Amino acid sequence: MSALDSRADEGDVVKKVMNAPVDYVDEMLDGLCAAHPGYFAQPERRVIARQSGPVQGKVGIVTGGGSGHLPIFTGYIGPGLLDACAIGDVFASPSAEQMAGAMRCADGGAGVLRLYGNYGGDVMNFDMAGEMLEMEDIRSTTVLLADDVASAPPAEAAKRRGVAGMVYAFKAAGARAEERASLDEVTAAAQKTADACRSIGFALSPCIVPQAGKPTFTLPEDQMEMGMGIHGEPGIWRDKLKPADAVADEMFDRLLADLGAGRGERVSLLVNSLGATPLEELYIVYRRLNARLGEAGIGIVSPLVGRYATSMEMAGVTVTLCRLDSEIEHLLLAPCDCPFWTVR
Amino acid sequence: MSALDSRADEGDVVKKVMNAPVDYVDEMLDGLCAAHPGYFAQPERRVIARQSGPVQGKVGIVTGGGSGHLPIFTGYIGPGLLDACAIGDVFASPSAEQMAGAMRCADGGAGVLRLYGNYGGDVMNFDMAGEMLEMEDIRSTTVLLADDVASAPPAEAAKRRGVAGMVYAFKAAGARAEERASLDEVTAAAQKTADACRSIGFALSPCIVPQAGKPTFTLPEDQMEMGMGIHGEPGIWRDKLKPADAVADEMFDRLLADLGAGRGERVSLLVNSLGATPLEELYIVYRRLNARLGEAGIGIVSPLVGRYATSMEMAGVTVTLCRLDSEIEHLLLAPCDCPFWTVR
Repeated sequence: MSALDSRADEGDVVKKVMNAPVDYVDEMLDGLCAAHPGYFAQPERRVIARQSGPVQGKVGIVTGGGSGHLPIFTGYIGPGLLDACAIGDVFASPSAEQMAGAMRCADGGAGVLRLYGNYGGDVMNFDMAGEMLEMEDIRSTTVLLADDVASAPPAEAAKRRGVAGMVYAFKAAGARAEERASLDEVTAAAQKTADACRSIGFALSPCIVPQAGKPTFTLPEDQMEMGMGIHGEPGIWRDKLKPADAVADEMFDRLLADLGAGRGERVSLLVNSLGATPLEELYIVYRRLNARLGEAGIGIVSPLVGRYATSMEMAGVTVTLCRLDSEIEHLLLAPCDCPFWTVR
Repeated sequence: MSALDSRADEGDVVKKVMNAPVDYVDEMLDGLCAAHPGYFAQPERRVIARQSGPVQGKVGIVTGGGSGHLPIFTGYIGPGLLDACAIGDVFASPSAEQMAGAMRCADGGAGVLRLYGNYGGDVMNFDMAGEMLEMEDIRSTTVLLADDVASAPPAEAAKRRGVAGMVYAFKAAGARAEERASLDEVTAAAQKTADACRSIGFALSPCIVPQAGKPTFTLPEDQMEMGMGIHGEPGIWRDKLKPADAVADEMFDRLLADLGAGRGERVSLLVNSLGATPLEELYIVYRRLNARLGEAGIGIVSPLVGRYATSMEMAGVTVTLCRLDSEIEHLLLAPCDCPFWTVR
């Protein structure tokens, strides 16, 4: 057993910057709202919404999910992006009541889009929240984000998990809603963008869930796991750590085969750290993907490099390709503003 | 010996996303420029400058330092910020020739400010670079950044290291230069802002320097080190990990005592991750600092929370207070734009 394995089994050392584990999420949300008062308000517990309230006449867009993934989900509330978010415990679904609360905070009279990752608990609770709002005469639609190609084969794409590619759907839906498009139009733009995204990631080391007090998985010191999910869901292989270019090549080949984009097309590209992996290493990966896209004759528009969807202090990288048409490209280039993503 | 200690001593597992360690910095810079072609160009090896070249008639501002700290130093090149940067190996000074190269790239005919952290190698090489440029009739000045209160007592403040507070001086000097102020005026604004900043940090776990192939220090699994530098320089105490509020309180008390700000004043505040520590935990720290500043009757302007000056995948947090007067506040609120910091 390696040193890292033995750490995982001890379970008594929780090297995190926190007070009582039970207060982790609420104290984080208090700090988030205090630091960005121009953007975020917490109108009820575990619901974060735009500070300025719902925008009358605009389709509201809500998301929700477990904590521990900042800036996703909570951080992408702002003009040209989302309107409200329901926040669960770390890696746990928010309740249907919290989701319904977020939907009410997002409602500007033009209906509400529920836009979130394809995880069982979230789907069940958001469906219930939609039914609750229907009784209040607030119409809502759903787009599920399921971009992780490692989580199921193409024939079972509906079973795939939502990972970092979710941010492209947030951006496109937010831009479309800002144009005062109808609920059906915003829903269509979100669905089209969700369908245009493919992601895959790998992990080098785990994170620690505060209340569990131990790492989410164990991985021997010299190994990586390809295809692992953002909560530590099993991937597709585990082996010795490979050079960055070899890892980037495998991710690129898998994504391109699944997406089917070809010469003369354009994509956006997100190279995302799961948390601990530094920007330096994201740029090393970006360099290779840039070269591979160039060889494939595929143009790059508005690439993103940084931390967009994390798993707290997990080390690893995810790559997303978003296949563009003129509509999606227009929506990606539209202005947006939040503390973690500004386009102007 | 703890599990973590034994890892450090093995020295044969380098869990980083990279190719050959010797290529780490150059591949990172290639990726950085490829990802942000509208911002960054690499006119010569290990020199990053504004893509659009020097701005005629504007004072040029250069910085430089070792790699491994993104977004500082390299990332803060752009309108309202810096003009060029010389880049060393990870945690190593750039050469005098590289610094002179950066200064030439920043020179728009109005002189050049050298604005960088107070580290021996950087000072020696930047002094030589200044002499080289003097022979080419390019006038330059120096402001050294030395904000880390843990690195020397107040009576020896000139010995202090430069850490995350450097970004405030970058911002103020960049804004002043954008106003087409003279070299002396830009230098004065940078010095005044540098003098107004105090920082302190703590570490939970080390990072790995690619070419060394082992952690920069060892720290038992249940311990933290207060006051540690961004290259693992020794801090002021090492003890069992404390709750976030207790750590925030100690940092706040030390900073405020050193800075001397009082009731009715205004500060900006940077809560910075050294790399691995997630945003969630920065907001937990921010929450406490926000409360303490409120109790002290000190107002907060434009707080920053995120990763501004890192040590690759090191875990830990630094806090900076920047004491404001009307001039510094004006400069902080002025527009700037780079991939890592946008004010509009």
